[in-house]
Parts: sequence; C-alpha cells; structure tokens
Amino acid sequence: MTTAFSVESAQLAIDNKTKPPGSLGQLEKVAVQLAQVQHTLQPVTDPARVIVFGADHGVAAEGVSAFPAEVTVQMMANFAAGGAAVCVLSRNANASLEVVDAGVNGDLTEFADIVHNKVRAGTRNLLVEAAMTEPELDAAIEVGRRAIRRAVAAECRCVGLGEMGIGNTTSAAILTGLMCGVDAVSVTGRGTGLSSAQMPVKVRVVAQVLERLSPGKNNAMECLRQAGGLEIAALVGAMLEAPAHKLAVIVDGFIVTSAALIACRLDPDVRACLFFAHESAEAGHQIALQALQADPLLALGMRLGEGSAAALAIPLLRGAAAIMRNMASFADAGVSTAV
Amino acid sequence: MTTAFSVESAQLAIDNKTKPPGSLGQLEKVAVQLAQVQHTLQPVTDPARVIVFGADHGVAAEGVSAFPAEVTVQMMANFAAGGAAVCVLSRNANASLEVVDAGVNGDLTEFADIVHNKVRAGTRNLLVEAAMTEPELDAAIEVGRRAIRRAVAAECRCVGLGEMGIGNTTSAAILTGLMCGVDAVSVTGRGTGLSSAQMPVKVRVVAQVLERLSPGKNNAMECLRQAGGLEIAALVGAMLEAPAHKLAVIVDGFIVTSAALIACRLDPDVRACLFFAHESAEAGHQIALQALQADPLLALGMRLGEGSAAALAIPLLRGAAAIMRNMASFADAGVSTAV
Repeated sequence: MTTAFSVESAQLAIDNKTKPPGSLGQLEKVAVQLAQVQHTLQPVTDPARVIVFGADHGVAAEGVSAFPAEVTVQMMANFAAGGAAVCVLSRNANASLEVVDAGVNGDLTEFADIVHNKVRAGTRNLLVEAAMTEPELDAAIEVGRRAIRRAVAAECRCVGLGEMGIGNTTSAAILTGLMCGVDAVSVTGRGTGLSSAQMPVKVRVVAQVLERLSPGKNNAMECLRQAGGLEIAALVGAMLEAPAHKLAVIVDGFIVTSAALIACRLDPDVRACLFFAHESAEAGHQIALQALQADPLLALGMRLGEGSAAALAIPLLRGAAAIMRNMASFADAGVSTAV
Repeated sequence: MTTAFSVESAQLAIDNKTKPPGSLGQLEKVAVQLAQVQHTLQPVTDPARVIVFGADHGVAAEGVSAFPAEVTVQMMANFAAGGAAVCVLSRNANASLEVVDAGVNGDLTEFADIVHNKVRAGTRNLLVEAAMTEPELDAAIEVGRRAIRRAVAAECRCVGLGEMGIGNTTSAAILTGLMCGVDAVSVTGRGTGLSSAQMPVKVRVVAQVLERLSPGKNNAMECLRQAGGLEIAALVGAMLEAPAHKLAVIVDGFIVTSAALIACRLDPDVRACLFFAHESAEAGHQIALQALQADPLLALGMRLGEGSAAALAIPLLRGAAAIMRNMASFADAGVSTAV
C-alpha cells in the first residue's frame, strides 16, 4: 500500500454514517471491500463494463446440454446485435459490454463489435483427452488478461465477467469437483435445462473425468488445461490480471465461479478483488461459493449465465460505493447517536 | 381491462426470449407482474420516485427505541440535505426523492424541499390510548394518496415507499401481530438496535396493546387508528391509491410491509401492484411477508428502513421491465431452441 488507507479506516467511515451500525447489512461489507480493493475511502465503480467470453466445447458431442452446440455462435451473434439478456441488463446498469470470441466454433468475423481472439474453434473433447494443449491454455489466459487491460485503458473501475459456451457447465462441474474435492453427483446440475433422461449422461462424463484427473487435483493449472474451456481459461486470466489494477470484479454464476476457484488457487490475491453477483440455481454453485467463502448479493433463482447476474449486481456495487463516498456522518448531519 | 393484454401473453413473451425457460428466475416473475400491473407488454419503470413519509410516535416515550425521539426531525433534515442512505441510493437508482412530513414533532418549515403535510406533531401514545382520532387517520391516509397523485402527475411509473419515525417498529410489530394473529415475541425485533436490556420493555408494550386490540382484529382500519403511525397511515393511503393509476409500488422493509398488510386487507386489488424490495433482519418482517405471499428481491441483511432497500431494488425492476421490452425472441435472433 502506498496510501494511508486501511481497512479499519474504511470500517470506521461506514460506522460513522447516519444509520444504526450495521443496518445496511451486506452493502456495508461491499463498501468496505470496494475501498479495500481500490485503496481509497472514495471508491468508484464507474465506468463499469461487462465482458463476455465465448467458446465451444468438444464435450458437447457427448450430449451434455439441452441446447445444440450451434447455439454458442448464434448467441454470440445475439450479443453483437444487442438482443440477449446480458445486453439488456448491461445497458440497464449503464455498463459497456464487450464480447470476446475466445474459441467459438463458427465464423463471427462479420461482427465488428466482437473482439476476435479465437484461440481454437472449440476445445477438444475433455472426456477423451485434455481439452487444451499448454500453448492453447496460455493463449486463452492471455485473452482474458488483455480484456482486463483494455477495460483499464478505458478507465473502468468495475468489471462484470460472463460467459457463453454450450457444454460449459460440464467443465465447471469438473473443475468444482476437483478444486473442492466433491463427487460428480454433488456438482452436476441441469445447466440450461437438461432433462431427467439426459442427466445420467452428464453425471457419467463428469464422474469419469473426475476419476481420471483426481491424482493431479492440487495442480489447478493442469486441471484447467484438462477440463476447462477456452472461455473459462480467459476468465481465469481476467481474474489474475485484476489485482495489479486494483479492479473490482463481479463474478457471474457457476461457470465464472469455477474459474474463480482456479484463479484464487493460482494467486490468493485475486480473492479480495472478487464480488459475487448471485447464488444460481445450478447444483455445484453453492459448493464453489462456500469454498471461496463468498457471500453472493442476489438470490433470484437465476441460471442463465452470460454475465446477466453480474450486470444486475452492478447497481448494488455502485450503491455501496456511493454510500461510502456520499453519505453524511452523524457529526456532519447533526444527528444524535444511540442513547 | 380495456386492452387485449393478458397475463398469459406476458408469460408467453417471456418464454420466447432467447434464454432457457425460467432461467432468469424471479426476474421473469417481476417482468410479468409489471406487465400485469401496467396492462402492457411494454412495461416501464421510469420516471421512478422514492417517497419517504416521516412522523413521530407518542409511544417513543416508553423507551422502545435505541435512538432518542429527536432523531426523527434530525433525519428529516438529513433527507432534505441529501446526506441519508435513502438520498444516496435514490440518486444511485436515478429516482427522484420526495420527503413528506406527515406528523413529525418538530419544525421543518425551513426546508423548502420537504412536503409539509403534518397532520399532528406525532401520534398519541398507543400504549395508553388510540394513536389517532378518526379525522387524523383520514387526514394521514389522504397525505399518502396525494403523494401518489403527485407522482402520477410527474408521470412516475414506479414508486418506492419508505418511512422515518423513531418508535415505528413498535407500531409495525403490533399491526403485524394483529393482522397475522401472532404473539408479541414473534413480531418484536431490535429495530434500530435496541439492547437486550431494553427489549423486554418493547415486548411488553407490544403484548399489552395486542391484548387490548385483539377483539377488534378483523377491522384493519381501526387497528391502524389505534396502533399505527401517521407515516404508516400515509403509506396505507399511498398503496390504496396505486391500483387506479396502474402504478408499480416497491415496498421497503418491515414498517412499509406492515402498512401493506393493512392496505391489502382494505382493498385486495392493492396486492398486484406491490413488489417487495427485501427481507429485512427485523423479526416480524418474515411473518408479514409470508402473510402477503411476498417473494422479496434482496436478502442483504438490511434493517435501516427509510426506503433504502426500495431504492436499491429499483434497478432490479428496471432490468425486469427492460427484459420484457427489449430482449430478442428465439425467432427474432435466429437462435435454436432446446433439442
């Protein structure tokens, strides 16, 4: 730290605001954490940006998703056209939206607003081989780091992270299982809406890969290479880049949280930068959140991904920052304290 | 209904958006309810306004609050000066803020931005007599109705309701006890932070008034007159005025929810207009929410009141309305549906 800032001073500032102590609940904790991340008693969240990384997954061929694999490229086009939930909710939150092709299996070059950083047209099938080679993994991580550096260059102070990739809850389930040491049934959910008939297929895939990789479970980077996605690796890269820029990062749902498990294992300094948008309806998400000692902001039963919940959480962080910056103290306002 | 609008058409519109069915969780329900309240598939929440009604309580003399009674007038001044949490969070939500003196025990005439509708300088002590006379009750209800008519005249489409009044969690506890048929211990909480030593005093006050009024528990208006506050009566009036204007109303915390119990008993059409900002940390709030079959949006452990949570929930309603208005359908975007 180069300033006189301390967490204690941030807590004291919040405690002196004109309200009963603790009465803004979790919003007070968010305000203190924002101050801590940015090393200032005047934290700001604007400009805010949502970054969505998209990529395809070889494992989709196993029938682990309710939607066909071509939906990834179709939804990337929908993001570019502004019609998807994350587009609507980012505009609603006064946040810019950046869409990054980290590895979609399809041609998106016609969309000028998409950042074209395709590492490969989708991962290999993680059921039968490593999802990525080491150079591919390194490249995907760098895609994420570059996205954060662009956001910082645009003076962003808060970034929400999202993802798109048919099949990626399978990767997230495996990564959560490996990082948290839990079994396939506990971490495997219905994703975008898998039927009861299809669920055993997904559980079997997750279980087989967990069995294959468990001996190496302490090596987060190798787990990511074996069972991650190119968008998940990009998310890890984005999180790894955040601390150097004192950047507040909002984690969206299950997939982004699985990336957070990896990133925090690789660099414990990442954790202080992370704010958790919501607790999704997806099975493994609670397990991952608990492992990260995360206290999510919203509990709306959402399970869409994309960054939709991260976008929805931006006004909450903005409000918390405004509380810290702009609320009057008891002394300022001449209000009596508790008797 | 004068339009072709139906709840089914709103649900169908949401189901056709480019997302797995139900994946936006409670946000979808909010979107459908907004459409229902406004009788349109293009619901809007802007302009949005937060209205705070302030009043004092004779019962404060019994020592039921952690803060001295003069804090009501001090906080009204803080609202007028823009330094309170509800001011900061209303600005954060791009909502105007209207502060109404419905019965504060103190002179606020120096503040030009406060709406001066003082019915009386605080209620009588509800422990020993009825809090209000019938004319006072009628006048306070009209204060609330007029505030809504002003908001409608300003073209507001969404109004968050809040309150300020030292001692008013005692009123809210009694009203909740009467409307929900539960005992004093269940509905009495620490309010702004009552100590363990002071709690028995508050519980005793609530219990004594519940015992006095229980024979008349089916008469919501009489309960309000006996045990309400002038700001609570104004909140009831505001809610009673909402259906005629197809106005979306965001209920803040425990005190506003107790007013909702009364208003919905007096006019069942009120319920459809109400959105519930959060589940507060105050004991009786859960009971009141359950009685109203309410599904609150936030669970941040807040217990400040003022309208702070209502303000924080405005961007969530705004997002839900935007989802309904602006998200692409599968057909529009050329995205494949589930296999």
